[in-house]
Amino acid sequence: MSLQLDFGSENTAPVHPAFVEALTEANVGFATNFEAEEWTAGAIRRLREFFEHDRLEAFTVTTGTAANAIALGAMVPPYGTILCHWDAHIETDECGAPEMFSFGARQVPLAGEHGRLSPDALAKHLSHARIGVVHSLQPAALSLTNLTEAGTAYTPDQIAALTAIARRYALGVHLDGARFANAAASVAATPAELSWKAGVDVLTLGTTKSGSFGVETIVSFNDRYNVGLAYLRKRSGHFSPKTRFLGAQLQAYMDDDRWLKNARHANAMALRLSRGLTALAGVTLVHPVEGNEVFVQMPDAMVERLVQRDCKFQRDWRPEPRHHRFVCSWATTEAQVAELIAVAQAASVSA
Amino acid sequence: MSLQLDFGSENTAPVHPAFVEALTEANVGFATNFEAEEWTAGAIRRLREFFEHDRLEAFTVTTGTAANAIALGAMVPPYGTILCHWDAHIETDECGAPEMFSFGARQVPLAGEHGRLSPDALAKHLSHARIGVVHSLQPAALSLTNLTEAGTAYTPDQIAALTAIARRYALGVHLDGARFANAAASVAATPAELSWKAGVDVLTLGTTKSGSFGVETIVSFNDRYNVGLAYLRKRSGHFSPKTRFLGAQLQAYMDDDRWLKNARHANAMALRLSRGLTALAGVTLVHPVEGNEVFVQMPDAMVERLVQRDCKFQRDWRPEPRHHRFVCSWATTEAQVAELIAVAQAASVSA
Amino acid sequence: MSLQLDFGSENTAPVHPAFVEALTEANVGFATNFEAEEWTAGAIRRLREFFEHDRLEAFTVTTGTAANAIALGAMVPPYGTILCHWDAHIETDECGAPEMFSFGARQVPLAGEHGRLSPDALAKHLSHARIGVVHSLQPAALSLTNLTEAGTAYTPDQIAALTAIARRYALGVHLDGARFANAAASVAATPAELSWKAGVDVLTLGTTKSGSFGVETIVSFNDRYNVGLAYLRKRSGHFSPKTRFLGAQLQAYMDDDRWLKNARHANAMALRLSRGLTALAGVTLVHPVEGNEVFVQMPDAMVERLVQRDCKFQRDWRPEPRHHRFVCSWATTEAQVAELIAVAQAASVSA
Amino acid sequence: MSLQLDFGSENTAPVHPAFVEALTEANVGFATNFEAEEWTAGAIRRLREFFEHDRLEAFTVTTGTAANAIALGAMVPPYGTILCHWDAHIETDECGAPEMFSFGARQVPLAGEHGRLSPDALAKHLSHARIGVVHSLQPAALSLTNLTEAGTAYTPDQIAALTAIARRYALGVHLDGARFANAAASVAATPAELSWKAGVDVLTLGTTKSGSFGVETIVSFNDRYNVGLAYLRKRSGHFSPKTRFLGAQLQAYMDDDRWLKNARHANAMALRLSRGLTALAGVTLVHPVEGNEVFVQMPDAMVERLVQRDCKFQRDWRPEPRHHRFVCSWATTEAQVAELIAVAQAASVSA
Repeated sequence: MSLQLDFGSENTAPVHPAFVEALTEANVGFATNFEAEEWTAGAIRRLREFFEHDRLEAFTVTTGTAANAIALGAMVPPYGTILCHWDAHIETDECGAPEMFSFGARQVPLAGEHGRLSPDALAKHLSHARIGVVHSLQPAALSLTNLTEAGTAYTPDQIAALTAIARRYALGVHLDGARFANAAASVAATPAELSWKAGVDVLTLGTTKSGSFGVETIVSFNDRYNVGLAYLRKRSGHFSPKTRFLGAQLQAYMDDDRWLKNARHANAMALRLSRGLTALAGVTLVHPVEGNEVFVQMPDAMVERLVQRDCKFQRDWRPEPRHHRFVCSWATTEAQVAELIAVAQAASVSA
Repeated sequence: MSLQLDFGSENTAPVHPAFVEALTEANVGFATNFEAEEWTAGAIRRLREFFEHDRLEAFTVTTGTAANAIALGAMVPPYGTILCHWDAHIETDECGAPEMFSFGARQVPLAGEHGRLSPDALAKHLSHARIGVVHSLQPAALSLTNLTEAGTAYTPDQIAALTAIARRYALGVHLDGARFANAAASVAATPAELSWKAGVDVLTLGTTKSGSFGVETIVSFNDRYNVGLAYLRKRSGHFSPKTRFLGAQLQAYMDDDRWLKNARHANAMALRLSRGLTALAGVTLVHPVEGNEVFVQMPDAMVERLVQRDCKFQRDWRPEPRHHRFVCSWATTEAQVAELIAVAQAASVSA
Repeated sequence: MSLQLDFGSENTAPVHPAFVEALTEANVGFATNFEAEEWTAGAIRRLREFFEHDRLEAFTVTTGTAANAIALGAMVPPYGTILCHWDAHIETDECGAPEMFSFGARQVPLAGEHGRLSPDALAKHLSHARIGVVHSLQPAALSLTNLTEAGTAYTPDQIAALTAIARRYALGVHLDGARFANAAASVAATPAELSWKAGVDVLTLGTTKSGSFGVETIVSFNDRYNVGLAYLRKRSGHFSPKTRFLGAQLQAYMDDDRWLKNARHANAMALRLSRGLTALAGVTLVHPVEGNEVFVQMPDAMVERLVQRDCKFQRDWRPEPRHHRFVCSWATTEAQVAELIAVAQAASVSA
Repeated sequence: MSLQLDFGSENTAPVHPAFVEALTEANVGFATNFEAEEWTAGAIRRLREFFEHDRLEAFTVTTGTAANAIALGAMVPPYGTILCHWDAHIETDECGAPEMFSFGARQVPLAGEHGRLSPDALAKHLSHARIGVVHSLQPAALSLTNLTEAGTAYTPDQIAALTAIARRYALGVHLDGARFANAAASVAATPAELSWKAGVDVLTLGTTKSGSFGVETIVSFNDRYNVGLAYLRKRSGHFSPKTRFLGAQLQAYMDDDRWLKNARHANAMALRLSRGLTALAGVTLVHPVEGNEVFVQMPDAMVERLVQRDCKFQRDWRPEPRHHRFVCSWATTEAQVAELIAVAQAASVSA
């Protein structure tokens, strides 16, 4: 059987053995449901060390869309707006979940190069917002994404520059960290530096794209949101009864620096992939590669050759300029990267 | 170490090995996310055999509250009412999830002995509903639960008697089947007989209480709801990316009659438990035991003795009459049942 | 032409001349829209005297359903419950508006004789509510109605007894005062005594049933709700641009004790009507007459005779016991009352 | 007393005598509430002639925001998008009412010169929309505004060009006609030509800006929306009990071509105003004047002079380019226009 070449998403990769083990180890005897058990309690203790923040609260759920929507739903009133990059996952890929969970708050898509929200765009929008005028929705939250949807990484300073503007307007700050580990690996910052120390109130911490079965955690650094988060999680059907299996996976994410090791590997594979591809005629990067994703324009013949080889990737990711997305994960191997490049090269040569 | 005596819920039991295996076996290589994989496709094919219905559609999620709320949200308009037993899980334990997902539809709690909705109560409510009067919410769905929240089982005929009334008012019919397997084992009916053949449009099929990690499936026998179900599942954050692991568990539920075997065992343990407890002075059943749950009134001294022994159960389940709930699962052993009875008996004797 | 015999609702009566004049007098020259004008400002100043409360805020809208739903929507979280009498207008006649405006909060219908909520029923419900348990909706508001939907009046002490219980559970207190004037006339209490002095946080003050074109005012005695009220009014399309005409009518309601005079007249007519009807064989009161409404059981032949005479009333108001509602207003005359009784008597005699 | 110079909005003008008369004439005797009366029935008959459409249905409410939000709420599912011009009233001035009434549908602001939506922008957006992909909100309605928020008028052909694109994607078409009369007067088209004949399904027909106390009518040319409209109107608190006064005003709007006469006058005043202002140094039109509104850039000194004279207008209407809005109504006189120009000219000369 030939090598699987799946660069479609981190979520097409198999689950990392550490998470399989975590599940198996947690499956001993009886344990009280709905978080009245040690696995979740232990995970929260570990999170407090991980983020160097002893009062954070955490709420596990099973999808990233849920984590983002519950976080934002608890942070903004229905008459609020959520300011985000136009390319953010909450804007493009969640079918309006934040609107549903906030009961109709509006997302305002703002500009910025390579997926990073521009401080100028943010400041300008806020300066024109009609604060206190009842006819207008009121700015209520800033939502950032790190890695961004363009695969780039914010540094702590870049986040702080944006949250400082947000604070002047009393906005809450949310960070979608579906690829938080990849960002941390990329900019060599600690979890604390990339979150509350940079002004983040509520973080969606992803472990799914890092290799778990599917655990996303809403991490709240601001206790004003905690009651709302708890009820909204339950009310939206996201309070899992068998929480021990979520808590166990969340612990596995942090244990042995698994989060960081997996992220470094995935980032390294993406860098290798981008170097290989961009060496080919007609292939150009659309965004700098700062994490585990590669966004490229490439000749149609090359796209077709990859498809014929049954290579999976996000074809036609965005239309202008038309380009494609390749994602690496903990499971991506050098051999897979090499073969993908070889297939692409073959198309290049034959063209 | 002493034996764990946990009768709090099926969800405190360990996961059955068949589901662990299913997960492990599905964790090979790469597989496309969001249901574009064989495990989910295979599960749906199996469901069509299981229910003898070749056009059903199915939507997996990870909690029962989610499954119920998405089902009802897709079935009723915001100005609709959902008619259910006052003791139903959607009424008592879901923090208003159906209200949220239906954008404010109202649940109307109706009466009935031992958790079974009374056909007379249903008919009478409908005869007084102001159909077509814009000032009144309009009856839109009937929601049944089998096993009921009182642990009793509806027969196919009992369901059909209720759905016949519902049809006269053009209501959709939902069945909360968190304990569907226990009901089927109890009344010796087929899945088809307990669902669409008895007039059910949409079923919440639980596997979590049958021993899985957490998979609940919305099974739609009526294609008018399917588009709404698909979008509402996504929009509420319940479309898991790594669906292969849900599909694999759903298959494991049906394979080798695992669903039925686990249910029969749990039901048998409950019967044994109820016989042992009701033989004690001061212990009386509040509801007949027709599944895997036992609802009893018992002396306070007995309750205290059980608590001292670290026995888990739902103390003070409902206040009038004040009583307690004991739940058995696939994992409940005869030894556990025997010891629970012995502890209770000791309190009885010493009293 | 024969005399119109319309006892269907206060809202079928013509508008009282004082409100027509108010409108005409306000229609001079240009006036800034959206409350930046003197009529609304003046009305709020007058309200502060009327209620002896110098910090109240007020928000005019055009229907009672709107006023109730905006008030409750601003007072309760989506995971809250609204405790009310089962016969309350918010429960029976608003098509789920409070559910919509609160984004799915649940109304809990409670019992009580003759439309008055029973303190025991309230206390008992609250003692069983699972406070702080995330699986349950949380009690958030008490909503009373004065006059009740059964036409009876709460005294200040009766209100205070209920709000004292509510306070122990930190509930907000709403009063639906669609017939506030009739209640005040009935129990001879001041507006302050019937509202904030008795523990009411937010009042829906009706003028429509008192003879205006249609002005209802949300009066907030608790500033924690004011921002929410302002945005929810706008966001639900209830902020009228030409507010001067609402403010002018609200002033007319209070001027010259118009509110009290109209209420006293309507109440007196109802008393006269009830005495006349109950003197007839087969007519019995279902509720004591304490305001401007009469609820009676009467022989079918009498009902038919009234219908033949084109007399308007709410036939079959509630089914158990089956009875009918007759409403008097500022416009009801002694002659109309006398003729209605005469028509009923004719049926009685001929029977 | 000096002349009032109020060009802030049509809604600051006094109510036209025809509407005062309509109200007075309707205030005779008793009339059944909630549309069971002749004034509303007569208004609907008149509307069917007015629009040459014998099956239209109509729903009166008291604000334009309500009419738009109810219309859109009944037309789109919660997972839908509403495509509109970025400058539309629903996008800029309704505090998210359409989002609330549609339970979180998203408005997509699109471009176009002078307030008119560009067919190319619409077609391009739709060609990139991920139709049928559950991760994306689905295009569900096109909402146009005529007059546009920039004061320009769509011709029937321009509307038809846009609705033809919308039809290819099965979108419903809504038209916000707060200034429908001004548009009709401007392009000399009939109500039918500007609505259903050009592909409009549901129209918000404004009479408030034409001089009434506050009546807006949702006119539905597509019966698939009618049940939803009826319940949503009630459920949102917008079904007025004393409908006869709304029906009477709606009739007055159509009687004697009042709608057209008032619009022609207002349009003529705006043209006169724009000519006078643009003759002054430093004053330039931002949009062509095609209705009753004038959007201009003017020197700050001129703005200050107008403010000192207590002239009302919308200062700083939009920031880029910074400009101001002047609105004429049925009540605007030549003398007022002349004085405004004179005040502005004085600033111009002294500069």
